[in-house]
Amino acid sequence: MREEVTGFAAIPDLVAIAGRDEDAVAEAARRYGYRKYYTDWRGLVEDPDIKLFDNGGPNNIHAEPTIAAAEAGKHVFCEKPLARTAEEAKRMLEAVEKAGVKHMVAYNYRFVPAIRQIRNLVASGALGRIYHWRAVYLQEWIMPHYDAPKWWRMDKSVAGSGALGDLGAHIIDLAHYLVGDLKSISAHTKTFVKERPLPDDSGKMGTVDVDDAFVAICEFENGALGTFEATRFAGGRKNYNSFEINGELASVYFNLERLNEFQIFYNATEPQETRGWADVMVTEGYHPWIDYWWPSGHIVGWEHTFVHELSHFLDAIVNDKEVGPHGATFEDGYKAAVVCDAVVRAAEAGRSVDLNY
Amino acid sequence: MREEVTGFAAIPDLVAIAGRDEDAVAEAARRYGYRKYYTDWRGLVEDPDIKLFDNGGPNNIHAEPTIAAAEAGKHVFCEKPLARTAEEAKRMLEAVEKAGVKHMVAYNYRFVPAIRQIRNLVASGALGRIYHWRAVYLQEWIMPHYDAPKWWRMDKSVAGSGALGDLGAHIIDLAHYLVGDLKSISAHTKTFVKERPLPDDSGKMGTVDVDDAFVAICEFENGALGTFEATRFAGGRKNYNSFEINGELASVYFNLERLNEFQIFYNATEPQETRGWADVMVTEGYHPWIDYWWPSGHIVGWEHTFVHELSHFLDAIVNDKEVGPHGATFEDGYKAAVVCDAVVRAAEAGRSVDLNY
Amino acid sequence: MREEVTGFAAIPDLVAIAGRDEDAVAEAARRYGYRKYYTDWRGLVEDPDIKLFDNGGPNNIHAEPTIAAAEAGKHVFCEKPLARTAEEAKRMLEAVEKAGVKHMVAYNYRFVPAIRQIRNLVASGALGRIYHWRAVYLQEWIMPHYDAPKWWRMDKSVAGSGALGDLGAHIIDLAHYLVGDLKSISAHTKTFVKERPLPDDSGKMGTVDVDDAFVAICEFENGALGTFEATRFAGGRKNYNSFEINGELASVYFNLERLNEFQIFYNATEPQETRGWADVMVTEGYHPWIDYWWPSGHIVGWEHTFVHELSHFLDAIVNDKEVGPHGATFEDGYKAAVVCDAVVRAAEAGRSVDLNY
Amino acid sequence: MREEVTGFAAIPDLVAIAGRDEDAVAEAARRYGYRKYYTDWRGLVEDPDIKLFDNGGPNNIHAEPTIAAAEAGKHVFCEKPLARTAEEAKRMLEAVEKAGVKHMVAYNYRFVPAIRQIRNLVASGALGRIYHWRAVYLQEWIMPHYDAPKWWRMDKSVAGSGALGDLGAHIIDLAHYLVGDLKSISAHTKTFVKERPLPDDSGKMGTVDVDDAFVAICEFENGALGTFEATRFAGGRKNYNSFEINGELASVYFNLERLNEFQIFYNATEPQETRGWADVMVTEGYHPWIDYWWPSGHIVGWEHTFVHELSHFLDAIVNDKEVGPHGATFEDGYKAAVVCDAVVRAAEAGRSVDLNY
Repeated sequence: MREEVTGFAAIPDLVAIAGRDEDAVAEAARRYGYRKYYTDWRGLVEDPDIKLFDNGGPNNIHAEPTIAAAEAGKHVFCEKPLARTAEEAKRMLEAVEKAGVKHMVAYNYRFVPAIRQIRNLVASGALGRIYHWRAVYLQEWIMPHYDAPKWWRMDKSVAGSGALGDLGAHIIDLAHYLVGDLKSISAHTKTFVKERPLPDDSGKMGTVDVDDAFVAICEFENGALGTFEATRFAGGRKNYNSFEINGELASVYFNLERLNEFQIFYNATEPQETRGWADVMVTEGYHPWIDYWWPSGHIVGWEHTFVHELSHFLDAIVNDKEVGPHGATFEDGYKAAVVCDAVVRAAEAGRSVDLNY
Repeated sequence: MREEVTGFAAIPDLVAIAGRDEDAVAEAARRYGYRKYYTDWRGLVEDPDIKLFDNGGPNNIHAEPTIAAAEAGKHVFCEKPLARTAEEAKRMLEAVEKAGVKHMVAYNYRFVPAIRQIRNLVASGALGRIYHWRAVYLQEWIMPHYDAPKWWRMDKSVAGSGALGDLGAHIIDLAHYLVGDLKSISAHTKTFVKERPLPDDSGKMGTVDVDDAFVAICEFENGALGTFEATRFAGGRKNYNSFEINGELASVYFNLERLNEFQIFYNATEPQETRGWADVMVTEGYHPWIDYWWPSGHIVGWEHTFVHELSHFLDAIVNDKEVGPHGATFEDGYKAAVVCDAVVRAAEAGRSVDLNY
Repeated sequence: MREEVTGFAAIPDLVAIAGRDEDAVAEAARRYGYRKYYTDWRGLVEDPDIKLFDNGGPNNIHAEPTIAAAEAGKHVFCEKPLARTAEEAKRMLEAVEKAGVKHMVAYNYRFVPAIRQIRNLVASGALGRIYHWRAVYLQEWIMPHYDAPKWWRMDKSVAGSGALGDLGAHIIDLAHYLVGDLKSISAHTKTFVKERPLPDDSGKMGTVDVDDAFVAICEFENGALGTFEATRFAGGRKNYNSFEINGELASVYFNLERLNEFQIFYNATEPQETRGWADVMVTEGYHPWIDYWWPSGHIVGWEHTFVHELSHFLDAIVNDKEVGPHGATFEDGYKAAVVCDAVVRAAEAGRSVDLNY
Repeated sequence: MREEVTGFAAIPDLVAIAGRDEDAVAEAARRYGYRKYYTDWRGLVEDPDIKLFDNGGPNNIHAEPTIAAAEAGKHVFCEKPLARTAEEAKRMLEAVEKAGVKHMVAYNYRFVPAIRQIRNLVASGALGRIYHWRAVYLQEWIMPHYDAPKWWRMDKSVAGSGALGDLGAHIIDLAHYLVGDLKSISAHTKTFVKERPLPDDSGKMGTVDVDDAFVAICEFENGALGTFEATRFAGGRKNYNSFEINGELASVYFNLERLNEFQIFYNATEPQETRGWADVMVTEGYHPWIDYWWPSGHIVGWEHTFVHELSHFLDAIVNDKEVGPHGATFEDGYKAAVVCDAVVRAAEAGRSVDLNY
């Protein structure tokens, strides 16, 4: 089942970076080795030296610059979630398809070696028919004892949604990647703290108009049941992006806080006396990407997911390969946005919503 | 926060046991030390020596014998779930209240020392406002590789429901015990294997008319969000009755497969450098019931939950104490049945159902 | 590899119990159902109704009563360690062999289902050649914050040794049971707190003349390296009797605080992508003894080791079976005493001591 | 207890790299950005542009080049173990002290954030008097199923020793760093596989003249007992560098395979009902170095230990700070070599050896 992954062949030329604050962007360009900088993103779009446009801004500036870059013939890479709404994501998808450029959304957890390995297992049939998907993404950093202000991630006009788009979008994308399309979904959303101090030190309070948490249940097209939960109010859960899949032949479990491992239980193929949940360290050379890193048992960190992801996209561009199915295309980004929208509608209506991607 | 629990003062006199198969019930009486046996439960009801009627039968014979025993002035103890429907449970509750007898439902997991300790923590305010309840009860024993026939737990007329009443009722009761009443609930249910061989060796197949699994999300009266899942299709999960509560001040986690432990994370009261999830072994003398058992670190097993439970009920009878809030009364049993019914209705209607206990 | 173990056929008749305090022993007899009691152990030895003499006293009264009972033709069961010294144990062994009675030492951890399963794996060759044995038995109950007095376990004339005989003897016996005989051993012992208040409330201090802890390293006859450590000064370790075996084909790990599980890693027989340490729940019907207890995943407690142990001995008596290799005979008890003595001598001499059992 | 650590101020100028194979070293220079390369290490020593000499070669070429570089007035950084013997290490120490240059040995695990945090806890008195040190470093990569040839790490003339110098030196250095100097040590060493194919494809076999594993026990100057074990024959242990310290006030546990965490148990300062082993994620801004990396819960990998280590040494050079006590100086390297030598002598003599550093 070993898979060859592409190594780090293409070395990017860092042409230019853009930011509104000239001092800050100049410093960033110097520090990270960009040759030029712009104080308006349009500078990047108009720069003929730039072949790949990487949009790492907040959610409200994903659509316009990314579409403009695609229309200018540049390949585009966009931070997740792709957009604030499915409608906005749809326009982005249509733009890149029309322009014929390569496109990818930064769903970086597809590039955790353990998750890629799990995907390979699912794809190989090792789990058989899937019965259950059970995913949570739990964090704690805006709980009362953190005294967090209302920053952009709590502003609907900028972020689109709260824990849903920030954390939930990741586990929704993983559900698509690992289990398949959803058929219907029910949801509740909640804002536990409705007023927070504005981040401008004015002492004024702002209304939080996004969700602090959501819970959802779904049925997949393939008949599996699924649960989703994302929250920033789970004390002690620092970055607990965790899922379990129960299949006819095997179950798997993953937790991002220990991203160098996953657990697997084969239902019936191991001798009964020694059958158990195997804790697999994904630090051996036969796991995707790992032979580019350290010896067995010498773990990798969170940042390696980005290296893998960008290496994958560069490879797709340089060698004209498909971005999917392992890289998340704008179509994948759009589909995640469709589910996020459905979560909001289901919660508001108090009823199950059918998915029509 | 230490709590004194009542010891094992009352030693029951095992008067009589009932069963339809005379050979079997005679052997059971001999083996366990009952003085008499009956081949009809009515024998127990009519026996003036019996003060406590313990109903351990399948769900479809909970109501009639239990009501008859209460009407005969006997205290009643009934296996969970209390009944197949809320309506049936309501009748049982009314009967015991009218008869003025003591009543208790066998929600034995309230008598796991760790769970009682968590209840004490919640009641003391140690968790503060509760944001999240996240419970699953996962088993695997009717998955295809077990070749399980259609026995009574898969027959709606006998069991009422499947994983819902068998496993789900436990976590619903724990939610009531640890968090409080529910306000509304949404749910999906699923029967993965719809036909199974009949257990009579006839070779004929029977239709499974109960759920193999359900998932549900709720809002509690106190504003917390909750998730529930119970399934018999989770490979590798043997008896995985697990919950997490995230509160304003602390989080707790429990898993029945390691019932001598629980985990707690205090959000802000520990020094930051050493703050973490504490794995608390509940085998010390200051935990409820443990000074009746073994030395520190010498664990107890599943059966001790029954000893605690029955000791509690005997104490309530002998010393005329309240069964609640720690013992589950028929009112608690009724409330769990109301939620089970709501799960079914929510799943059928594809919409959120309000709870009106 | 499944093993049939004998069930609970023989039901013992509790003839008599002995104790020096008449009130206490009378109450014990009443409470546990013994028909008679004696205030001198000689009463038991002389009682013709007694067939099995069970010596549960402190170490200094193991030899004389047990030898007397054997000479009176009774089968004997003795608490571990068998004696305070190898010489004393040798006399006991010679007595039972001469008398031709059944004999067993209460090394109850051989009767943990997981440990019996590990023994079966070792015996079957599943681990191959053994390279490493790594055992600790860690407790904390005489650390300064417990304010423990000098009770009998800290008195050399009564106990023989401290952590060595109490905890170390268990892991030494398990090494014999699971790996084999030792060839040579080196050791350090330590008494961290040398004076403790006497338990008589006199306010006087007594000198602790036994070890609070020991560490030892050995070579086994089969070439494996071993480490042993036992201490009562390991804060947070409640009953941490833990060992790991690394073999040519597989490794296993066990921890008594989670006695319903063990971990196994097969070095080369599993597919590399999913190879890992399997956490095996020993609560399935195919594990030794478990089909006499609860359903899958419903764990057993510490006391079940005693039930298994005594059931095993009763079976050996009633059906004239061998006590070994699974039950620890007096020969096993003697061998553990030889190693305990060697630990003391090695520590005193500062050099490696050869074992000549 | 929060500690400020120095950030990444100094950016090194990569002047030159040396290697005997010109093609390989030229490629390495190009790939990593060195301005020049040499095919003889003397080129580096004679190059006046070089201020810091970093010796990453096998153990047999640590002494001569490092001494030459120090004599040429360059600061020196040397891979661990510092030398093959204490005598060799002593000469290196004397050379750097005479030359007055900065010196550091690459004991990089001192720069794991969790280990630095543990050191801070020990130094603050949070553990109180230390009773026990328990360390193992377990790997598996030369077990029979790996078919490993006899490469330089199994050749005494090159490596000095086997698992002892490679793995054992790390845990000996950590013992010095976290507990203090040793007073005496006993040891066993073992070579399980005595002949291996030579790595030159000749088909010839070579004799392994170093240890595959060692076990040792010690007493520290402060009275604590210690155990050490290092092996390359522990199946399933990939990079299991793990230690536990039991102190009067608290215990700590660490495992390099999960290097972003450590466990701590406070013996008596937590409420009894919730006292347990806390699993501390060392990914928060208040842990050493972590505010230079990712958000809470987003883990770092093995390579970050080298970044921290080199940053520390550059800071010591640029700002003329002390390398110790957190960086391992050549004196620390010498002391580890003294203990390694003592392990060999103790094993050969079969007796305890006193340490005289």
